[in-house]
Amino acid sequence: MNSATDSARPHDQIRPVEIECGYLESNPASVLYKSGKTIVLCTASVETNVPPWMEGRGKGWVTAEYNMLPGSTSPRKRRDRSGKVDGRTTEIQRLIGRSLRAIVDLHALGERSITVDCDVLQADGGTRTASITGGYIALSLAVSQLAAIPELDPPVDPTAVLRDSVAAISVGVIGEDVVLDLDYRLDSAADVDMNVIMTGSGRFIELQGTGEEATFDDVQLAELLRLGKIGIAELTKLQKAQLVTV
Amino acid sequence: MNSATDSARPHDQIRPVEIECGYLESNPASVLYKSGKTIVLCTASVETNVPPWMEGRGKGWVTAEYNMLPGSTSPRKRRDRSGKVDGRTTEIQRLIGRSLRAIVDLHALGERSITVDCDVLQADGGTRTASITGGYIALSLAVSQLAAIPELDPPVDPTAVLRDSVAAISVGVIGEDVVLDLDYRLDSAADVDMNVIMTGSGRFIELQGTGEEATFDDVQLAELLRLGKIGIAELTKLQKAQLVTV
Amino acid sequence: MNSATDSARPHDQIRPVEIECGYLESNPASVLYKSGKTIVLCTASVETNVPPWMEGRGKGWVTAEYNMLPGSTSPRKRRDRSGKVDGRTTEIQRLIGRSLRAIVDLHALGERSITVDCDVLQADGGTRTASITGGYIALSLAVSQLAAIPELDPPVDPTAVLRDSVAAISVGVIGEDVVLDLDYRLDSAADVDMNVIMTGSGRFIELQGTGEEATFDDVQLAELLRLGKIGIAELTKLQKAQLVTV
Amino acid sequence: MNSATDSARPHDQIRPVEIECGYLESNPASVLYKSGKTIVLCTASVETNVPPWMEGRGKGWVTAEYNMLPGSTSPRKRRDRSGKVDGRTTEIQRLIGRSLRAIVDLHALGERSITVDCDVLQADGGTRTASITGGYIALSLAVSQLAAIPELDPPVDPTAVLRDSVAAISVGVIGEDVVLDLDYRLDSAADVDMNVIMTGSGRFIELQGTGEEATFDDVQLAELLRLGKIGIAELTKLQKAQLVTV
Amino acid sequence: MNSATDSARPHDQIRPVEIECGYLESNPASVLYKSGKTIVLCTASVETNVPPWMEGRGKGWVTAEYNMLPGSTSPRKRRDRSGKVDGRTTEIQRLIGRSLRAIVDLHALGERSITVDCDVLQADGGTRTASITGGYIALSLAVSQLAAIPELDPPVDPTAVLRDSVAAISVGVIGEDVVLDLDYRLDSAADVDMNVIMTGSGRFIELQGTGEEATFDDVQLAELLRLGKIGIAELTKLQKAQLVTV
Amino acid sequence: MNSATDSARPHDQIRPVEIECGYLESNPASVLYKSGKTIVLCTASVETNVPPWMEGRGKGWVTAEYNMLPGSTSPRKRRDRSGKVDGRTTEIQRLIGRSLRAIVDLHALGERSITVDCDVLQADGGTRTASITGGYIALSLAVSQLAAIPELDPPVDPTAVLRDSVAAISVGVIGEDVVLDLDYRLDSAADVDMNVIMTGSGRFIELQGTGEEATFDDVQLAELLRLGKIGIAELTKLQKAQLVTV
Repeated sequence: MNSATDSARPHDQIRPVEIECGYLESNPASVLYKSGKTIVLCTASVETNVPPWMEGRGKGWVTAEYNMLPGSTSPRKRRDRSGKVDGRTTEIQRLIGRSLRAIVDLHALGERSITVDCDVLQADGGTRTASITGGYIALSLAVSQLAAIPELDPPVDPTAVLRDSVAAISVGVIGEDVVLDLDYRLDSAADVDMNVIMTGSGRFIELQGTGEEATFDDVQLAELLRLGKIGIAELTKLQKAQLVTV
Repeated sequence: MNSATDSARPHDQIRPVEIECGYLESNPASVLYKSGKTIVLCTASVETNVPPWMEGRGKGWVTAEYNMLPGSTSPRKRRDRSGKVDGRTTEIQRLIGRSLRAIVDLHALGERSITVDCDVLQADGGTRTASITGGYIALSLAVSQLAAIPELDPPVDPTAVLRDSVAAISVGVIGEDVVLDLDYRLDSAADVDMNVIMTGSGRFIELQGTGEEATFDDVQLAELLRLGKIGIAELTKLQKAQLVTV
Repeated sequence: MNSATDSARPHDQIRPVEIECGYLESNPASVLYKSGKTIVLCTASVETNVPPWMEGRGKGWVTAEYNMLPGSTSPRKRRDRSGKVDGRTTEIQRLIGRSLRAIVDLHALGERSITVDCDVLQADGGTRTASITGGYIALSLAVSQLAAIPELDPPVDPTAVLRDSVAAISVGVIGEDVVLDLDYRLDSAADVDMNVIMTGSGRFIELQGTGEEATFDDVQLAELLRLGKIGIAELTKLQKAQLVTV
Repeated sequence: MNSATDSARPHDQIRPVEIECGYLESNPASVLYKSGKTIVLCTASVETNVPPWMEGRGKGWVTAEYNMLPGSTSPRKRRDRSGKVDGRTTEIQRLIGRSLRAIVDLHALGERSITVDCDVLQADGGTRTASITGGYIALSLAVSQLAAIPELDPPVDPTAVLRDSVAAISVGVIGEDVVLDLDYRLDSAADVDMNVIMTGSGRFIELQGTGEEATFDDVQLAELLRLGKIGIAELTKLQKAQLVTV
Repeated sequence: MNSATDSARPHDQIRPVEIECGYLESNPASVLYKSGKTIVLCTASVETNVPPWMEGRGKGWVTAEYNMLPGSTSPRKRRDRSGKVDGRTTEIQRLIGRSLRAIVDLHALGERSITVDCDVLQADGGTRTASITGGYIALSLAVSQLAAIPELDPPVDPTAVLRDSVAAISVGVIGEDVVLDLDYRLDSAADVDMNVIMTGSGRFIELQGTGEEATFDDVQLAELLRLGKIGIAELTKLQKAQLVTV
Repeated sequence: MNSATDSARPHDQIRPVEIECGYLESNPASVLYKSGKTIVLCTASVETNVPPWMEGRGKGWVTAEYNMLPGSTSPRKRRDRSGKVDGRTTEIQRLIGRSLRAIVDLHALGERSITVDCDVLQADGGTRTASITGGYIALSLAVSQLAAIPELDPPVDPTAVLRDSVAAISVGVIGEDVVLDLDYRLDSAADVDMNVIMTGSGRFIELQGTGEEATFDDVQLAELLRLGKIGIAELTKLQKAQLVTV
């Protein structure tokens, strides 16, 4: 391994993860998700209707919003108050929404909406994958809450709504190395960056491999996918542990 | 005391306060400020220049931004992404900025800017006063950091920059009662709502007393001010305890 | 009295006021309000519905908009056409609206809306207090007009809708002096600036005392309030004179 | 003449005009211009620079802004605060600017900008032509003021800057009739509406003839132009009278 | 003729025109209109409803949008993505819409909307007149398509909907010359620029004559109109030829 | 192959492609690119500077903008004029820009910017991949033009600037089948959709595989990649043929 990736953490190991469910007293479906120094507050909010364009189809909707707090980076990140959400933010929140919907049976949810807000308190790389992994836990908590309301008509069956779990991790190529779970330092050094989003049962939901001013070949692709699967398996285990204890 | 204010907390006592300095590893001038269930993350960020309209005057600038996270309320609060910051938010962040500047010697700061971001993680009333009280601590930590940089030219003298401390609390009239530190339940019941912002040395910085569809008289005003001073004294003590230990 | 306040007008006297009711032929509820050189055109427009969020409650709504014409100041003030109403404007029009609503019985108004537009033709300090004092007259004229429509169902009883009158005046601390009714020259010199908004019957609606980079103590507060009450009493007399003759 | 145009005013006569120069004490180049019930406040503001795209060419710039106050119409007109100036407003203010520039020698003005603000206090048809006719007077007053500043370098020669005067009037086709100076009632009835903008010396600056869902022929065009010239001659006389007395 | 207009084309002759109907396979009412080097893609889209403010009147609506592609000019034209359509674009698309509506019987159209999009692929002067002339063809094709739908209730009679045809051409004054159909080079040299919009039967729809920093007299006006009519007659012939063959 | 993919075209064959270089007379670096019924006009515009944030680094910049014309779809697509470019558009144009930059040596380009505009005239699926494939040709033509300017300092060496070529194609999973080059009908039926972007030399630039409400496994991934490479090879051949003949 060359100097750019020379750190205590092995190249095939994810950062330490801490998950605090019910972080906000006012919303049990709130999760403070920490992956190394990256901290994301994920909250899932339920509404008893769907957006106008979905009404009357007997289906629900799951969407996500992503935001970095100004103090999450150094130098301070300016707030998105211009009326134009920047392109990166738009892409990330669309990705989070698609990833969560991939494992939800929207018919089983009924005509209800769940918005998963992912607010980054501290950013050290991997905020979008942390948002998906933590966002799934918040979503799952919200579905459980819905299921616990006795008078709901029709009632919500959480095992029908959530067909699987979802987790996400980044992998990258740095010089000659392929590395799992890029923090900010690694991400800055990476030539190729890939986000791997998979179900708990091991199927792909989304693959986004990008070389900004660089390219990659078949051999590197295979190694990126191999490491990604290792990370996903680890995160899936951590998610399950949390949701059992809730 | 009537039923609206009938709770465990006496009418002249503030909510329990918890203050966690250096909450974010990436920014020592970050404070997690909790007043009862209200939680505000205050971070102060320093820039080595001033806004264009202030350049060349040998003075610094202190400003604030305020925001409520979508998950901070129930039902979920929509994000300000329309390009129009709502009127309430604008008023609050202008108030926070003015309150902090009232105790800062901008000449002693030199041509530097400090932005204090107040992001509300959980809202249970009193978010603007919590932002001022917690924001002062973040500001104070940022000034101390500046003072610790040996090569700064001119150097920053924190006792010159911060001429005093600042804290804020709300008081209100509920039916016949005058009450200190309104949480959401009390605030909703209040006919008159006043924010008292004072220095640690007991001088007024700002008084904002408002009766929405209601009015108040001289006797009530006197009692509002009396309780406000009690709260400010208590908060000033808590701020000092934190800043000594830092 | 020091040089900053050294002018013909005593420190406890308001500027000369001129009020022209029915200034616009097309709208009898239009008032050209002059306080010294400050000129505000206040027009009240009635709509026979309420905003969507108030429908079906059997209550009306009163709101205000404030604007300075580009030619009202020197140098010329740029128009608010960016889609972002500036913070100062937002604060002022919210204040005017709250102040007027404080003396209106919205139930007695029925499901109707009154918008009071305050457009500043010439600005020489005190535009927000002039807007409130003149805006009340426009509002009162609009309510009288509504009451004069025989076929209204339910009919409008102006004495029920307007429970009191409202007037506003500024007071300030300049060096050692406390001064009533700040024109632009005085306002620029003031360390502390307070807007006093009261009913004709002598109760407080709103108090906004602000020290930008300054503070004030209990003695100064008492004198600020004393002078404010003198000004309010004078303005209330002038309002009554107008509304009797209409 | 048919019933739609049956009023006291002959079809070839303009409405009574009242012009009050120096209406605002703070800006001598302010004109309250009344044409019948239409009232426009025109103010000209001088800046000692030009827009960035004109810098360094040794030429000045003249531009205009047009706005209708909310209370100028019944029902109330909503303010342009959405960030999108409506198409009609944009067209009108571009027209006013072009019309004024047509008689200005921008080189003789030097690198200075004059903005003519036309704010409609009361609208009864013909607000754009009133804005041009009144705006010329405000512009002329501003140029005179510039000429009166002794230390200006280079000095401003008002007879060089203003090569001619400019006035504007509307004409229209109503059924079989061709009519001069359309007030709101006539404008609503008109099939074809033409704005005639001419110099004091009788040359065309702009012709805008429009049939919304209607058309016109050569004979009607000739009569529209004949009446327009009558109106322009009358307005030019009134402008000269004002500017002589100033 | 002086050097500015010294080219192969006589001053009273329009540029060569090419018209390709049905350019887009997905929309038969699409026209690629070329006038010299100016290329405009005009497409007419039908909706089976009208804007909310027109509902229930038994009338249809015709509107237009105009846009220049970034690559249509050199240097590249920035896209209108700021949320503020620039003033020139607004004026042009309002002009196109008015011109088309002038020959449409909106009652005969029924409660349907037709939007004519005019996207300029290459700009060499005269894009607005090309948009009107080409837009009429697209509109006509859309009406014919509507008429061909057997089950429409009520059916659309194209000869009732389109009362006439419409074409547009520019004319200008360059030095001492009056010239027909200004391309970019001529337009840049023109002191006065007039758009003539007429029906196929020879009536005026709109006349817009403008002198930016210049003026014109009666003799020039007469010659501008004479040349304009020559151009309109030629374009009307070309339109008819196309629509017969469709 | 099931009915959804039952068409004349085999599942491993791309649509017929037509490429017209120099489509606009005013810009030789303009390409009309047709893939089946999808038509994209790609134009590359060169500026002799870089965005402010890149100045002084001795590097150039390549960026792209993507837009669908309103008439490109049925029903008509509304224009992006709200000031908010929609999320899909933002994602696509960022993707095009990244893909082109991956094969450009920005240092060899020098401090110059190239903007590639991709305007979709007709949309039948695959507009983003057509934009990349056609955009590369426009970019290449622009670089050749730059290289042909003798006085450029430093001169541009096109073989140094363009290190490789780039092409893009979509592949998808429809039921049990994996299919190459999805037109609108196939795209609507696809459970999984992947965009494959590769260099002419066979390396990956970007992989974006997405299952909206669906997932895919390793076997499907392998087949998606196999078909994608077939398509890329075919497109690379067509690009080379064009650029040789230019």
